[in-house]
Amino acid sequence: MPEETIAKPAIVLLSGGLDSATVMALMRRDGYAIHAMSFDYGQRHKQELHYAGLIAQAMGVASHRTVHIDLGAFGGSALTDTQLAVPETGVTPGIPITYVPARNTIFLSFALALAEVLSAQDIFIGVNSQDYSGYPDCRPEFISAFEKLAAVATRLGDEARGPRIHAPLQHLNKSEIIQLGTRLGVDYSLTRSCYQLDDQGRSCAGFLEAGIADPTPYQ
Amino acid sequence: MPEETIAKPAIVLLSGGLDSATVMALMRRDGYAIHAMSFDYGQRHKQELHYAGLIAQAMGVASHRTVHIDLGAFGGSALTDTQLAVPETGVTPGIPITYVPARNTIFLSFALALAEVLSAQDIFIGVNSQDYSGYPDCRPEFISAFEKLAAVATRLGDEARGPRIHAPLQHLNKSEIIQLGTRLGVDYSLTRSCYQLDDQGRSCAGFLEAGIADPTPYQ
Repeated sequence: MPEETIAKPAIVLLSGGLDSATVMALMRRDGYAIHAMSFDYGQRHKQELHYAGLIAQAMGVASHRTVHIDLGAFGGSALTDTQLAVPETGVTPGIPITYVPARNTIFLSFALALAEVLSAQDIFIGVNSQDYSGYPDCRPEFISAFEKLAAVATRLGDEARGPRIHAPLQHLNKSEIIQLGTRLGVDYSLTRSCYQLDDQGRSCAGFLEAGIADPTPYQ
Repeated sequence: MPEETIAKPAIVLLSGGLDSATVMALMRRDGYAIHAMSFDYGQRHKQELHYAGLIAQAMGVASHRTVHIDLGAFGGSALTDTQLAVPETGVTPGIPITYVPARNTIFLSFALALAEVLSAQDIFIGVNSQDYSGYPDCRPEFISAFEKLAAVATRLGDEARGPRIHAPLQHLNKSEIIQLGTRLGVDYSLTRSCYQLDDQGRSCAGFLEAGIADPTPYQ
């Protein structure tokens, strides 16, 4: 008699960008039932949420929620504050102006709530080496500290050790992520990949470096 | 020449109940500029938010925000799920049905964002021994794990060690909290203290035990 195989539920933070799309491709490869969470937090790039829906559907997710939260009320970031220009250049020393206070802490907290409700033991997040050169809450030590928190924060934590926080892109740069996702069949035309385009307004640096044509449908 | 004294900003999670009112009285005594955060998360007891506003005003806070979040979408708790009856009895073994998944993790995450924006080094929460007998995210090990997370999660964390998470009621029971607050001049008639009343519908057990008349204006 064949064993019954039921896909393990797992949560992913889904932005609509290429990182989280690539993470979902890894989850799909590994046989998880994907429960995607997106956040409407007053970001300027509302199209992200549109692309999040497209890529979630393409990946065959088990569920996709968009949680409305009011980060904009806190101010202090170019991503939500329309008074500030988004820098055109890439990663700069120090913490970039596009940083949103405690954003990944808040997002992972919601993921933790959903993990508990769904009895999911795994939470995925698409942070990578390019991010954590600048954003405090993308660094490996942050991911590790959140996992320790999760172990004592929930009912699951009482019974065992709480959900694992997976950051499978942690040691990859953009072009490596794009190469990985391309091998896994990610359709990057369904993602919103860049905050800003190159000088010609045609492509992300990551695609140029990966030697792969940028399929993002820029308007 | 007298030193100029500027009150240090600190964040408090304000529910409208007696615990957070007592915490604010301690903060007031210690000279903090109090920035209160309440959460509209689909709780059944909407009056909590009304009392939160009253007690914040009475304490002379520097600011009071109510953040709207959608915990109800996750289900699984009597506090937000109107299909489930709130238990009439007090603390029972195990995790009570009134537990909301990851609630304090989410609330503290928002407090952390505000702390960063205000450059506040202190966050206060009114968890106490009666709570953490049942709720995983009220226990001392949870508070400690969140403080470690905060140290690596924010800009502040980059510069120093991040904000402290204070839980000054951690080792007090309800009647001790009421006695403390009464000494500090808390007007408990401005709080919403109980989820359920005693048999006569007149009082909280905590006030009975403290030997102090319950001034809560039950409807």
